[in-house]
Amino acid sequence: VAGGIPIIKVVREAFVGNQFESIHGILNGTSNYILTRMTETGMDFAPALDEAQKLGYAEADPALDINGWDAAHKAIILASLAYGFWLDPAQISVAGIEGVTAADIRFADELGYRIKLLATIKAGPERQIEVRVCPTLIPQTHVLASVNGVFNAIAVRGDVVGESLFYGRGAGQDPTASSVIADLVEAALALEVPRACYGFTSHDLYGRCLPVGEAVSKYYLRLAVEDRPGVLAQIAGALGESGIGILSVIQPEGLEGEAIPLVLMVHDAAYSAMQAALGKISALPCVKAPPVLFHVESFS
Amino acid sequence: VAGGIPIIKVVREAFVGNQFESIHGILNGTSNYILTRMTETGMDFAPALDEAQKLGYAEADPALDINGWDAAHKAIILASLAYGFWLDPAQISVAGIEGVTAADIRFADELGYRIKLLATIKAGPERQIEVRVCPTLIPQTHVLASVNGVFNAIAVRGDVVGESLFYGRGAGQDPTASSVIADLVEAALALEVPRACYGFTSHDLYGRCLPVGEAVSKYYLRLAVEDRPGVLAQIAGALGESGIGILSVIQPEGLEGEAIPLVLMVHDAAYSAMQAALGKISALPCVKAPPVLFHVESFS
Repeated sequence: VAGGIPIIKVVREAFVGNQFESIHGILNGTSNYILTRMTETGMDFAPALDEAQKLGYAEADPALDINGWDAAHKAIILASLAYGFWLDPAQISVAGIEGVTAADIRFADELGYRIKLLATIKAGPERQIEVRVCPTLIPQTHVLASVNGVFNAIAVRGDVVGESLFYGRGAGQDPTASSVIADLVEAALALEVPRACYGFTSHDLYGRCLPVGEAVSKYYLRLAVEDRPGVLAQIAGALGESGIGILSVIQPEGLEGEAIPLVLMVHDAAYSAMQAALGKISALPCVKAPPVLFHVESFS
Repeated sequence: VAGGIPIIKVVREAFVGNQFESIHGILNGTSNYILTRMTETGMDFAPALDEAQKLGYAEADPALDINGWDAAHKAIILASLAYGFWLDPAQISVAGIEGVTAADIRFADELGYRIKLLATIKAGPERQIEVRVCPTLIPQTHVLASVNGVFNAIAVRGDVVGESLFYGRGAGQDPTASSVIADLVEAALALEVPRACYGFTSHDLYGRCLPVGEAVSKYYLRLAVEDRPGVLAQIAGALGESGIGILSVIQPEGLEGEAIPLVLMVHDAAYSAMQAALGKISALPCVKAPPVLFHVESFS
């Protein structure tokens, strides 16, 4: 997990005295390279992926990197080590970066955010763990927003140690070799002395995944709507019926024929409530394309 | 070392497959808090120290924090673990932040730098290790420049793992307790299984400190000079006689009576050559106060 960053040793040994409040990670170098280039140059997803492949940062079949599952596998390992039970991949929320457009990155910048493929692991109520891996808006002032290119970084918040962050090369033969050598040395020491096994008990004993629909978050919502009066009122109405408030709105000038973008930053809401509202919004005649929804992480 | 940051475990275990090319650390939270406040507000050293004491970030007797030796003790431990022999404190270069003025921070900012109390540990030629702890100009674009307040951070460059960085709370009872708990767990495991001792051999077998005079660095030099033509030529001449080039010059408008500040960024030079040049410069009649000299670290 995370190539040269010794995050497993940190979670399992160095922070053994902590309860983990949250772990936030940029865990896939390919996705981060693509999003970084999109942010730096304004280019769209397809040419950025093309560039990453030419430079050897993306595999010929980049599916697992792009669709979020490579990062999700690592997040599941980290969450399992941090909380002591194996998480079921079917119970976490995973989305990739294919749906991020140059326009989204521009709107996010205007709102004071960067878009990263972020793994979010949080302790919730009643031993429930929230895990998601998806394109996420991060405040530009947060150190994770400055992690660029193929680098990985993981921010860990422990109840005793407080905030900490680990940064390094997340892939490549040399950084990975550095970690493998450390593992071999540990295994060689264990040959002489069988150490306590870091086993896990069954899923139900120590905790469970928070159901995806119950996870609460702020959201970035981009719609394509008709350019006429009253549209914002209809959208706000549909959100309001689900008890969801709006934090801010960007409505740029018309660009693409009759449909124009409408970007909303949405207040804390359960994902299920948000999905219900999106169902109503999609059905409105003034909405011309499927809504684009990203999580916003404020690290509170 | 560094409170909640598990840097000793990283150096000793996680990066066991690496030769360390360099370790750069912000290792004293008190100094970093003071320099951060001076940078944020433009205040001078004395009121910033006063504020740190009122907030409990500095001891009633803050000498070890302020004069660089608290950070130096930690740097010696890190260097000894990284290179396998104990370094002699008398052979390293240590300076504190008392000599940093609000003007220095302003000039550094103008030149694109932040001033930090930085521990620099570098592998040199022929098994010589360069270690210094002193106020150091860091490029604003480097991640260490953004480590503010009482936080600590350590950037490690290994020949296999490449660049990595570790960030967290460097002091305080909770972060330190987190590290002590991890140490106790490790000690408890070792009770059952006496593990290989991490001992060191004698000083001379594996390496030695690079003599302070031989260490090469760029420098920030601030002089108080007479405000008349020909002064810069005399200073540049004295540096040139020692074979030292100038990278850039700031000569602000006169502020303090007859003496005005003259700030020079000086090219790579051995510390002994720089001291020789400073001797000549101090003796010039146009130079009105002892020169102020800080290292500049470009992380190359």
